[in-house]
Amino acid sequence: MGVVINCDMGEGYGLYSCGDDAGIMPHIQIGNVACGFHAADPVVMSKTVRLAAEHGVAVGAHPSFPDLQGFGRRDMAMGREELSACVLYQIGALKGFLDAAGMKLNHVKPHGALYGAAMRREEVAHAVADAAQVYGVPVVGMAGTLHEKVYRARGLTFISEYYVDLDYDASGALIITREHEARDPAEAARRAVRMLTEGKAVTIDGRDFDMKAETICIHSDTPNAAELARVLKEAVRPWLA
Amino acid sequence: MGVVINCDMGEGYGLYSCGDDAGIMPHIQIGNVACGFHAADPVVMSKTVRLAAEHGVAVGAHPSFPDLQGFGRRDMAMGREELSACVLYQIGALKGFLDAAGMKLNHVKPHGALYGAAMRREEVAHAVADAAQVYGVPVVGMAGTLHEKVYRARGLTFISEYYVDLDYDASGALIITREHEARDPAEAARRAVRMLTEGKAVTIDGRDFDMKAETICIHSDTPNAAELARVLKEAVRPWLA
Amino acid sequence: MGVVINCDMGEGYGLYSCGDDAGIMPHIQIGNVACGFHAADPVVMSKTVRLAAEHGVAVGAHPSFPDLQGFGRRDMAMGREELSACVLYQIGALKGFLDAAGMKLNHVKPHGALYGAAMRREEVAHAVADAAQVYGVPVVGMAGTLHEKVYRARGLTFISEYYVDLDYDASGALIITREHEARDPAEAARRAVRMLTEGKAVTIDGRDFDMKAETICIHSDTPNAAELARVLKEAVRPWLA
Amino acid sequence: MGVVINCDMGEGYGLYSCGDDAGIMPHIQIGNVACGFHAADPVVMSKTVRLAAEHGVAVGAHPSFPDLQGFGRRDMAMGREELSACVLYQIGALKGFLDAAGMKLNHVKPHGALYGAAMRREEVAHAVADAAQVYGVPVVGMAGTLHEKVYRARGLTFISEYYVDLDYDASGALIITREHEARDPAEAARRAVRMLTEGKAVTIDGRDFDMKAETICIHSDTPNAAELARVLKEAVRPWLA
Repeated sequence: MGVVINCDMGEGYGLYSCGDDAGIMPHIQIGNVACGFHAADPVVMSKTVRLAAEHGVAVGAHPSFPDLQGFGRRDMAMGREELSACVLYQIGALKGFLDAAGMKLNHVKPHGALYGAAMRREEVAHAVADAAQVYGVPVVGMAGTLHEKVYRARGLTFISEYYVDLDYDASGALIITREHEARDPAEAARRAVRMLTEGKAVTIDGRDFDMKAETICIHSDTPNAAELARVLKEAVRPWLA
Repeated sequence: MGVVINCDMGEGYGLYSCGDDAGIMPHIQIGNVACGFHAADPVVMSKTVRLAAEHGVAVGAHPSFPDLQGFGRRDMAMGREELSACVLYQIGALKGFLDAAGMKLNHVKPHGALYGAAMRREEVAHAVADAAQVYGVPVVGMAGTLHEKVYRARGLTFISEYYVDLDYDASGALIITREHEARDPAEAARRAVRMLTEGKAVTIDGRDFDMKAETICIHSDTPNAAELARVLKEAVRPWLA
Repeated sequence: MGVVINCDMGEGYGLYSCGDDAGIMPHIQIGNVACGFHAADPVVMSKTVRLAAEHGVAVGAHPSFPDLQGFGRRDMAMGREELSACVLYQIGALKGFLDAAGMKLNHVKPHGALYGAAMRREEVAHAVADAAQVYGVPVVGMAGTLHEKVYRARGLTFISEYYVDLDYDASGALIITREHEARDPAEAARRAVRMLTEGKAVTIDGRDFDMKAETICIHSDTPNAAELARVLKEAVRPWLA
Repeated sequence: MGVVINCDMGEGYGLYSCGDDAGIMPHIQIGNVACGFHAADPVVMSKTVRLAAEHGVAVGAHPSFPDLQGFGRRDMAMGREELSACVLYQIGALKGFLDAAGMKLNHVKPHGALYGAAMRREEVAHAVADAAQVYGVPVVGMAGTLHEKVYRARGLTFISEYYVDLDYDASGALIITREHEARDPAEAARRAVRMLTEGKAVTIDGRDFDMKAETICIHSDTPNAAELARVLKEAVRPWLA
């Protein structure tokens, strides 16, 4: 009942910053926090979790393939056992900071290439599920893909999402790019409202397709993410959970 | 009341193995499991925790400075905030595998150079305590050092340990070496029994000093660790908790 | 004219050892030395290069995908530009130790999953060639694959090799496994002699196929590699270059 | 005869950028390029070297302790052998990109905590010298410290530098901070001119001390580095080599 906005965040590393998390937090309900494998170090994670706590933002784990240099946006051939251990390690690490902040783990949402691989390779989706099942939390993903099929089959709650700052290819599949460019906030907001009212999204070549989602995703590394989040939240306010 | 044997373990990495953990497990009561920063990867951690579960060995976190190449045996200048986050990250990651196995986090014991630094630098001991306090578990360390002083002052349970496979210098301070060599199991066992009966240990130059410890430590990367563990356990059996 | 034996080596890391390089060196002519991305650290590289110098073994670079945990045996999706930079970085790093030892870079031979990917994906083979071309050295690989086609098209010298400690599948393609098991030295030697005399190798299901190779490869992480190298060298001595 | 401006640069990593290298290049003569251990990855190194080539900027290696998370600004206890191998590895890796661009290695300048440690610990200065000696290139450092003493004793050319975007403590020692803040370009230029004309610098508490340097250093991660470089170059133009 009602939609929430989720955002990938906490993606700085050491002296490197990435995204205006403080500017985004007031406008979202759920944060997917990087766990150190594609971005973030323990200090960044600690600060991000405390920032979320201050804003009443629920925090989920945003685990990745082990690929800091590639920001987790390069696919890797990992078997189910090693991948589920890799994901569980990251969830556990994040949970350390949640425990310190007195917060609960809200959900798991795989990052970048891991997200993409879990849509297409059954053993990857199962590896994510293996780890999420330890805590019994929901998993966020794309409806109509192996995300939905495998997580539901495993008895996990599946939460479908719609990306308003990325494009969908001619087949309606999400286009995961290595770097994100600035998006028109008004256009992103229109997309969100259209999905909420008409249940439709549009492919990169202008064709409509069905889109029903419980949460709308934005990325903190989109250059104008804070402004986009603000405009988006205003637009979807009537539907917010 | 009674002594237990603890062992640093789970210190392989990828295809590299380190120590005969399966051979050691039957002879110890407490395992200090590497958390990926000086040794271990998620698969190794998962396997080590399950092996401990099978043998009824209680598991604590064995966090390190971030130094895989140096096996965590090189000191690093890290501030309290970044170090406590670094330690909490590792504890949380290990706890993921304990949660999966239905086990509790038993304690925290810093590894190698972090262990040594916490004996000598107050902010390092506090950083370890900051992280351990999130879970309220005991911390294992050297009596008479900042380990004991800081952890107790922070309200944590302090568990003192005696190393029977390492040497103590003329001042009675532990000598932490980069690599471990094989030790005479009978000699290690004699040291343990002498500590238990007389409360004495001996320095590398042959002088006695007072040693009272609740747990006896061995290392899985000592070449003959499994045999040493077996002989040691036989010798201290009357005192085992 | 004549065959040489090459061996992947220098694959320890920090305190972890891997393979009996000192035992293998007397029996080979060419060493493919790990460059820190799947195995080896700067100390290991320095020692391996000096060991090769003592035995008169020519040294080539053995670059990998950046995957220490997976020992470089997991495929990764990397674009040509980032991959050629990744390979050049490793070659340069190795060359530092060769320069220190007064040795020349003899060749380049990609490792593990990078080797496999370069057989099948043209942009991967080109990325290897981009880096090798900086030094104009030969590239070692599998005849009849993109290795041969791309390296030759780029004007590089291609050196074909035959693996006597791995298997070939029904199509005659090399089977790259994550871990290596011990091999019968006599059987490996027989395979080498048969290739040299008949130009034939055998698939895992017993079918003959054509195999002409200028160098025979063994792996230092095969458990009995030193003995295998010794027996192999004796057997192929009449054909040694 | 004459001064040059040097700048630490090429310090981005993956998707993270750091400093406006393109804006700085026109105003400097020498670039100290990160080698992947405190910042930079192979792609960043390749691009930085090519950018320097386009601007006729001479390139030296800027090696670091292995500490990406700490940006190489945390001291580490490494022995001479492992440290010299660590430095040589980085120099070699950079040289790969220089070889690709047809450029020469101009010098070596240690980074951050390694720079500071080489001023104070003789074995660290020797480790740097061990690696630089392989190529016989000059080493840039602080006059009056072990940099000067050790490098000269080893027969290396020593190039002294003056930092106009950092402070010097009451004893005249450089204050190496974890993060850099914006500096007044006019003030930095005045410092440079005063050093060139009077041979004086000033401590953080306002006391003059002698400063003779052959090169003036700025950092690309100082927030306004490009503007500072421009103003500085204008001011010291009469003295430029």
